[in-house]
Amino acid sequence: MTAPNRNTLWARALIDELVAAGVDAVVASPGSRSTPLTVAAARTDDLRVFSQLDERSAAYFALGRARRTGKVTPLICTSGTAAANYHPAVMEASEARVPLLALTADRPPELRDSGANQTADQEKLYGDAVRFYKDLPEPAPNDRALRSLRTTVARAVGTAEGADPGPVHLNVPFKKPLEPTRVLDDVPADLDPVAERGRDGPYVDVTPGSPEPGDDALRRLGNELMTTDRGLIVAGPADPPGLDAEAVTALSHATGFPILADPLSGVRFGGHTRVAPVIGAYDAYLSAEVAGEAGDADASDSWNDPEVVLRLGASPTSKRLRKYLAETGADQYQVDPAGRWREAEFAATDLVVAEPSRLCARLSRLVAGGDGDADWRAQWEDADRVAQEIHGRERDGDIPADDEPVEFHEGDALRVVADALPDPATLFVSNSMPVRDLDRFVGPTTTSVTALGNRGVSGIDGIVSSALGAGSATTDDLTLVVGDLALYHDTNGLLALDRCDVDATVVLINNDGGGIFHELPIESFEPEFTESFKTPHGIEFEPMADLHGLAYTRIDARPDSVESAGNVADDLADAYTGARDADGSHLIEVRTDAESSHRTRKRLEAAVDRAVHGDEAE
Amino acid sequence: MTAPNRNTLWARALIDELVAAGVDAVVASPGSRSTPLTVAAARTDDLRVFSQLDERSAAYFALGRARRTGKVTPLICTSGTAAANYHPAVMEASEARVPLLALTADRPPELRDSGANQTADQEKLYGDAVRFYKDLPEPAPNDRALRSLRTTVARAVGTAEGADPGPVHLNVPFKKPLEPTRVLDDVPADLDPVAERGRDGPYVDVTPGSPEPGDDALRRLGNELMTTDRGLIVAGPADPPGLDAEAVTALSHATGFPILADPLSGVRFGGHTRVAPVIGAYDAYLSAEVAGEAGDADASDSWNDPEVVLRLGASPTSKRLRKYLAETGADQYQVDPAGRWREAEFAATDLVVAEPSRLCARLSRLVAGGDGDADWRAQWEDADRVAQEIHGRERDGDIPADDEPVEFHEGDALRVVADALPDPATLFVSNSMPVRDLDRFVGPTTTSVTALGNRGVSGIDGIVSSALGAGSATTDDLTLVVGDLALYHDTNGLLALDRCDVDATVVLINNDGGGIFHELPIESFEPEFTESFKTPHGIEFEPMADLHGLAYTRIDARPDSVESAGNVADDLADAYTGARDADGSHLIEVRTDAESSHRTRKRLEAAVDRAVHGDEAE
Repeated sequence: MTAPNRNTLWARALIDELVAAGVDAVVASPGSRSTPLTVAAARTDDLRVFSQLDERSAAYFALGRARRTGKVTPLICTSGTAAANYHPAVMEASEARVPLLALTADRPPELRDSGANQTADQEKLYGDAVRFYKDLPEPAPNDRALRSLRTTVARAVGTAEGADPGPVHLNVPFKKPLEPTRVLDDVPADLDPVAERGRDGPYVDVTPGSPEPGDDALRRLGNELMTTDRGLIVAGPADPPGLDAEAVTALSHATGFPILADPLSGVRFGGHTRVAPVIGAYDAYLSAEVAGEAGDADASDSWNDPEVVLRLGASPTSKRLRKYLAETGADQYQVDPAGRWREAEFAATDLVVAEPSRLCARLSRLVAGGDGDADWRAQWEDADRVAQEIHGRERDGDIPADDEPVEFHEGDALRVVADALPDPATLFVSNSMPVRDLDRFVGPTTTSVTALGNRGVSGIDGIVSSALGAGSATTDDLTLVVGDLALYHDTNGLLALDRCDVDATVVLINNDGGGIFHELPIESFEPEFTESFKTPHGIEFEPMADLHGLAYTRIDARPDSVESAGNVADDLADAYTGARDADGSHLIEVRTDAESSHRTRKRLEAAVDRAVHGDEAE
Repeated sequence: MTAPNRNTLWARALIDELVAAGVDAVVASPGSRSTPLTVAAARTDDLRVFSQLDERSAAYFALGRARRTGKVTPLICTSGTAAANYHPAVMEASEARVPLLALTADRPPELRDSGANQTADQEKLYGDAVRFYKDLPEPAPNDRALRSLRTTVARAVGTAEGADPGPVHLNVPFKKPLEPTRVLDDVPADLDPVAERGRDGPYVDVTPGSPEPGDDALRRLGNELMTTDRGLIVAGPADPPGLDAEAVTALSHATGFPILADPLSGVRFGGHTRVAPVIGAYDAYLSAEVAGEAGDADASDSWNDPEVVLRLGASPTSKRLRKYLAETGADQYQVDPAGRWREAEFAATDLVVAEPSRLCARLSRLVAGGDGDADWRAQWEDADRVAQEIHGRERDGDIPADDEPVEFHEGDALRVVADALPDPATLFVSNSMPVRDLDRFVGPTTTSVTALGNRGVSGIDGIVSSALGAGSATTDDLTLVVGDLALYHDTNGLLALDRCDVDATVVLINNDGGGIFHELPIESFEPEFTESFKTPHGIEFEPMADLHGLAYTRIDARPDSVESAGNVADDLADAYTGARDADGSHLIEVRTDAESSHRTRKRLEAAVDRAVHGDEAE
C-alpha cells in the first residue's frame, strides 16, 4: 500500500531500517515537526514507544537502556530547544561510550536562518561528541534517495553500536503536511520495491569489527605477563554491556594475577567471584603514599607493589587506586578498543588497541600455566578481608577507642542495600558520594548484580532517568541509590515510573545539599562553603513521592537523632526488603549528616590503613 | 593584598571586570572545578549571587533577567554535563538575541581527552549559537595575561550586549588548588597594579555602535513612507529590553500609519496607546484569504491592504498576520540591526540594517506632516474594536445562535488576568497556546505591562525559570501564565521562588497534555494523536505547589463541570486579584478542556471574520 505522502514514506523507511538493525524501542517526546517519525514509530508493531515529556530526561532514559543492553534506543524530538535538551546525555554517552541515536526533526533548509517559528541551527548541534552525523536530505520519493536513507540508518546504528560505541545524530527535516494525510501524486506508484519497502532484514547488514592485535604482538604481551610474578588486572567501569567476567577470570587463572574490579566493571559481582581472586575494597587501603619504590621490591616492607598492570575499561572510580598505580612505577598496559587515552596520571607505559574481553580470552589461552605468586594474591585477599571486616564493624578493636562509637554512615547504606539485593538485580548508583561509597564499602559478592552509573562525565543530572531506562530494559528488580541533589536535578525523570511502566526501589541519601564538598578543601572556607557549595535546599521529598506514586518511608540516620548505628541499619534493611518484595515503586529516604559521615569514613580509612599497612603508612 | 594563589587572582580579575562592565548579579550552580569563580563572586560586595542547583534552570533564569533588563547576568558552572545543560537557553538566547554569558569551568588542557574525571570536550560547546567564544588560557600571574583576561571579559560583555546581542561563552580552565588557600610564591609581589587590580571602572570601556543608514538612504525610505497612504508599522517580539514605544508612536503620528503590535513587542501595552493607533486583535481577523489583489486596491471590497509595511523586531507571533502580509504583495521593509532575515514567507522586498527605535525617531523627524489616510486607520481601529467586543461577549448576536452558548475558554483566562494586572506589571507567558491566546484575546491597554516570552525558538522548556529570572530583575509584580506541559518541564525552576527570593502569581492552564495539537491536522489520527501528541499525563499540581511553598487555588473551567462561563471568569478574577494582593507566591490552576477551547476559538474566529469582512471572507 503506497504511503499517503512522501513524509510518511520517508519516516516509515527510516523506522523500518532501525527495527531491521535490531532496535526494539524508541523514546519519543511530543512535538509537531517530528510527527512523521512519531506516527511511523507508533504504527510499527514490534517497536515499543516510550513517551517522555521532558527531552533531557528522555535522552538519559535512552542512555540507561543502552547501558543495560549495549543496544541503541533511538530518540525522537521536535525542532529547536528540544534537540538542545539532548546535549547532556549525548556528552555522557560520548565519554562513556554508550550507544545513543538522536533523531532531531527540523524545518526544511529553506526555512532555516530566516526567523521561522521554533527554528534554530541544528546542524552539528553536538559538535565532536557524536561519532556519526548526517543532516538528512528532505524526504524525496525516489529510489536512490530511499536507498541512501536506508544505508545511512544502517551505518548510524552500526557506528553507535560498533567498536567505538557512542552517540550518533541524524537531523531530519520535514515540510508540511506532517501528518499521514493523502497528497495526490506525492508518492509515485512505480517505486522500486526494495527502495520503497526495503529488504527482509536490514537493507545493509553491518558486521562490526573490533580491533585485534596481531599474533606476535599478542605473544610479546603474553611473555611479559608470563614472566611477571606481581601483576594486576584492573577492571575499570566498562563500556556497556560490560566486561566479560569469564574471560577476565580465565586470564587471572592463567597468570595468577588478582583482579581489582571497579563496582561498574561487570566483574566485581557475580558467580565467577567464587573462583577468581576479585579484589573490591582497594579504595580503603591504597593511596599514593602506600606505593614504595618499585626498585626495592624485595625489601621486607610488608606491602608489595605490582610490576605489571593490565588496565581494562575506563578510568577506575577510585582516585586512591589511580594515584597508587601511578606511584608504583609499574608497566601499565592500557587496553582501549577505541585507541584513546583513559589514564589521567599519564603514567601508563603501553596502549593496546584491542577489545578487552577478547584480548583476555586470547591471552589466557596463550599464557596458560603461569600461576604467578601465591603470596602476592594473598596480600590483596587479606587486605580486602581486613578492610571489609573493619567496615562491617567486626574488628572494632582496630578503631581507636578514644573516639565515640562508629555511627551509621552513608557508606553503610550502600552496604545494607547491597547485602539485601535480590538475585539477579540491576543497581544504579548516582554520582558524587553514592558511587564512591559503593566502590569503597561494597566488596565482591556472588549475587548477579548489574551495577551501573554515569561515570563518563560523572554528572549528577539525568540519574533517575538513566536508572529507569536501565530498569525498563531488564526483568531484574531495579534499585537506585541516589543523593538529594541528583534526585532534585532529575525529578522529571520520575514521571517514567508511570508513563514508561517501570518499577524501582529508590534509596535516597538525603544530607540536604552537596555532601561531597565536605571531602574537599573548600570545606574550611565559610560562609562561601555553606552558601555556594553545600547549598542546603531543605526540599521535602515525601510530597515528591506522592506526586509520582511512590510509597514512602523515612529513616533518620543522623547521629544526634539515633540510638545506635545498629537500629538504623536494621530499619533500612527491613524497609528495603519490604519495598523489594512489594509491588510498585518505593522511595526510602535515609536522612544523613554529611559531616559526620565524612568523619566516620576518615576514621575507618585510618583504621584500615593501620590494619593493612601497619603504622608506617600513617 | 596579593591573592593567595593564581586561581584566586585570575578569578577575582575576571569577576571584577564583569562588575566594572555593569554586571550586578551572577547565577552560580554548585561544583568543585568552578570554585575560584564562585568564591570570587561570593566575596564581591556589590554582586548578587543567585544559587541554582539545576544548570538548565539556572541558564533560563539568567535569560529571563536579561530579557527584562537588556543586561547580561553571567552564569557560573562546573565542568562536564553541567555546561551542556546550558545549551537550550543558549539556543533561545541566540535566536531571541538576549544577552547571556556562560562561564564554564574546565579541567586544564593537559587533562582533557584523557579519561580524567568529570571532563568532556567543552571547546566551542555551543557551536555557532554564540556571538563570542574564548577558551581562556590557564590562570597565569603575569601582567600581559591579566591584561588579556580583562580585555577579553570586556569584549565578551560588550558583544553580548552589543548591536547584535546574544550568548557568549568563556571556557575557564583551572588546576588545583581551587580554593583560596595560600600557595607560596604562586603570585609575584611585583605585578603591575593595573594588571593586578584593574582600573577604576572597566579595564576596557566598550561603547556599542548600532548600525545607522546614511542620510540619503534614510531620505529614500522617508520619501517612500511619505508618499504612501496605506502603510503599516508591524512591531514584532522585540530584542530586549524592547522597542521604544515613544519612537514608534512618533513615526506613526508622522506617517499616519497604524501600528500592529505583537504582545511581546513592548508597544502593545502602555500609556502611549492613548495617543497612538495601536492595533492588537489582528490575529482574529487577518488571514491569507483576506488579502485581496494589491492591484485593485480601489475596488469597493470592504477591506483594503497595505501598500508599504515597516517591520520592526522579530517575526510576529501571529501566523495569520505573517501569511496575510505575504499575500498583500506590499513593499515590506524588514528592519534588522543584525542584518539577518526574520521573515519566513520570503515576501519582504527590503532589508534595512538599522536599530529600529532610532530609525523610527530619525524617520519621524524627516517625514513629519504625512498624516496618511484617516479611513485607512479607521479600518483597523474598527476591526480591532469589533473583534474585542465579540471576544468580550458584547456582541453575542454575531455568534451564530444555533450553537450552544459560548463557554469560558483558555483565551478568556488571558483576558481576565490581563484586565486585573497591577500597574506596572511584568507578565511572562509560556509558549504553545498561552502566548497565542495573549496575542489574539488581549488588546492594547494603557497599563504599563512588560510582556515577555521565549519566542526565539518557542520551546516549552525553561519557562518557569525565565519568568522568575525576569521577576528577580524588577520591582514589578510578576505574573506567569503557563501550560501544564511547560510547568512540568521546568518544575525545578520553582525552587528559585525560595532560593532566589522571587514572588510570583502563577496561572496554570491545565488541559492535561498538549492542547496545541488540537489545532493541528494530526488531531484526526487516532490512536496516535492521544498517545503520542496530546499525551495526557494526569499530573496533580497541588502537591507540586506544596513542595515549593505556593498557595494553591483550583478552578474547574471544563464545560461539563461549569454552570456558566460567567462564574468561571469571576472566580478566576477573584482568585487572581486575591493572589496579586497577598504576599508570597500563588498557583491558580485553571482546569480546562483543550478540545472545547479549540472549538470556541474557531467559533469566535468565524464570528469576527464575518463581522469585519462580511461573508465573502468565509
